[in-house]
Amino acid sequence: MDSAAASIAPDWHVAQWFNAASPLTLEDLRGKVVVLHAFQMLCPGCVTISIPQAQRIARAFDPAHLAVIGIHTEFEHHDVMTPQVLAVFIREFQLGFPIAVDLPGLSGPIPPTMTAYAMQGTPTLILIDRRGRLRKHAFGTEDDMRVGADIAFLLAERELSNDTRL
Amino acid sequence: MDSAAASIAPDWHVAQWFNAASPLTLEDLRGKVVVLHAFQMLCPGCVTISIPQAQRIARAFDPAHLAVIGIHTEFEHHDVMTPQVLAVFIREFQLGFPIAVDLPGLSGPIPPTMTAYAMQGTPTLILIDRRGRLRKHAFGTEDDMRVGADIAFLLAERELSNDTRL
Amino acid sequence: MDSAAASIAPDWHVAQWFNAASPLTLEDLRGKVVVLHAFQMLCPGCVTISIPQAQRIARAFDPAHLAVIGIHTEFEHHDVMTPQVLAVFIREFQLGFPIAVDLPGLSGPIPPTMTAYAMQGTPTLILIDRRGRLRKHAFGTEDDMRVGADIAFLLAERELSNDTRL
Amino acid sequence: MDSAAASIAPDWHVAQWFNAASPLTLEDLRGKVVVLHAFQMLCPGCVTISIPQAQRIARAFDPAHLAVIGIHTEFEHHDVMTPQVLAVFIREFQLGFPIAVDLPGLSGPIPPTMTAYAMQGTPTLILIDRRGRLRKHAFGTEDDMRVGADIAFLLAERELSNDTRL
Repeated sequence: MDSAAASIAPDWHVAQWFNAASPLTLEDLRGKVVVLHAFQMLCPGCVTISIPQAQRIARAFDPAHLAVIGIHTEFEHHDVMTPQVLAVFIREFQLGFPIAVDLPGLSGPIPPTMTAYAMQGTPTLILIDRRGRLRKHAFGTEDDMRVGADIAFLLAERELSNDTRL
Repeated sequence: MDSAAASIAPDWHVAQWFNAASPLTLEDLRGKVVVLHAFQMLCPGCVTISIPQAQRIARAFDPAHLAVIGIHTEFEHHDVMTPQVLAVFIREFQLGFPIAVDLPGLSGPIPPTMTAYAMQGTPTLILIDRRGRLRKHAFGTEDDMRVGADIAFLLAERELSNDTRL
Repeated sequence: MDSAAASIAPDWHVAQWFNAASPLTLEDLRGKVVVLHAFQMLCPGCVTISIPQAQRIARAFDPAHLAVIGIHTEFEHHDVMTPQVLAVFIREFQLGFPIAVDLPGLSGPIPPTMTAYAMQGTPTLILIDRRGRLRKHAFGTEDDMRVGADIAFLLAERELSNDTRL
Repeated sequence: MDSAAASIAPDWHVAQWFNAASPLTLEDLRGKVVVLHAFQMLCPGCVTISIPQAQRIARAFDPAHLAVIGIHTEFEHHDVMTPQVLAVFIREFQLGFPIAVDLPGLSGPIPPTMTAYAMQGTPTLILIDRRGRLRKHAFGTEDDMRVGADIAFLLAERELSNDTRL
């Protein structure tokens, strides 16, 4: 994980939300550790490995302190991977955490949130600390022990987040 | 598995083929054992368990004697689960065996091949012997040892298939 | 698998049996397919992969036609890997099939059954057909679909085994 | 996990050490988080699940801050589960962390370290914090994300351990 001197995580650019009553911003989630899980619904590594892991994360930690946010960063098949298909996918796979749809790319295939985070592909796991700082960026899959530990390290920074010197 | 007195497997009703130069019929495949694997691309049990198993079947047996045929029996979301989405799915999951798209249901949501085989849902695994007879019908998932053995039992009926008494 | 022209499997050299009312010979098992599973109780590949597979084999096939026989071919630590330890191992792992203890090596560490079958180590899986012929010899681990299919091919030779021309 | 008000972990009663140049005490390990992994070499849940997990723990965290200690708490078959057998087991399974052999039970089958920690059986996972306090006691198996997180929470208490108020 990156040190606490890391930069602030960029805002999201969202076309549509699922599993959220209203749009969610990083500002809204300040005070919580945020797990940002970027996926595509037809990416095999996402469907078989990282999405089940995101579900285990959501079950393992207290939602009062941790938010799991999915983001569908479609960079290959925007024409057919519509929000209507994603709605079916979310229901069939019983995903319960909020899921954002990244906006279409403006000047190319890469959608803007994916660009803002300099993601190399899917799946990508991003950890953002209680103050909104980007602390971990992992392209591909990581084992549960590493991910569970990294989340816990950020959760343990709770008291420090009230530190007035920062 | 059902006995060799089983009935002839019904024909398929196909809107479109992938991974096939021309439409395939059961008649064309007579002489081979046929593994008919019914799936939906957004069915979790299909994507995580039965599709990888179908790929292992295709790798484990000699294509001169065994044909793996996928059939996309979309009975829930025909409007969004288009052949264009399926084309992406097949490419992303690197499925190499021929895959048929079941026709839309005429008088209801259930597509006609699914109806003809009385399938209860997806995934469903169907084994058809060298003479075109329906020998196994399994809804849900089965372990590799059982499936491998059942396929081998049908492959071993090779000599009998030349039996002139039948 | 080897062809049906394979040689007759050699006899076993057994110090002691577990899970068997009396000593078992290949002659006794003629008419059945025999899965001979050679293992050592402190071999990681055996304990984590091949022994669970042997248990799945024993559950998947009809004992009227298939016999799973374990053989403990201790070639490294005969002094400490005693039958008393093996008895505990068999009970703790709930192994229900007959298990033979290979005799100590006479002129070196390799026990005589292991030598007779030219085994390279553990785990080793041997398949013997209904007539006692050695049809498959696999050192290391193999996937369930391959093993299930190979067993089924041998089981399907049932009728031929009564063929008087052979 | 238990709160930081937990009691001090009891001392170990060790007949013999493996993978340790000299006997290790909890006092020696003060300042580190200690993962105490109680197992028996012929316990299936230990061999197939918890021992591989202990190896993953040892690889995932910095040994300057975390010590994985195995303890062989033989309570069933002391006569045959000798240290000589354990030496073979440790070598074959390539266990690299220090492993203690619990002393034989004095007035019954339960060995004294197992009694001191009130363990119910094997596998048992114990987490001890940097000040030697018992913080987690889990009989059976737990998933990697939970274990990884609990270890990280204790590791994150580093600064507090230098707190002079305690």
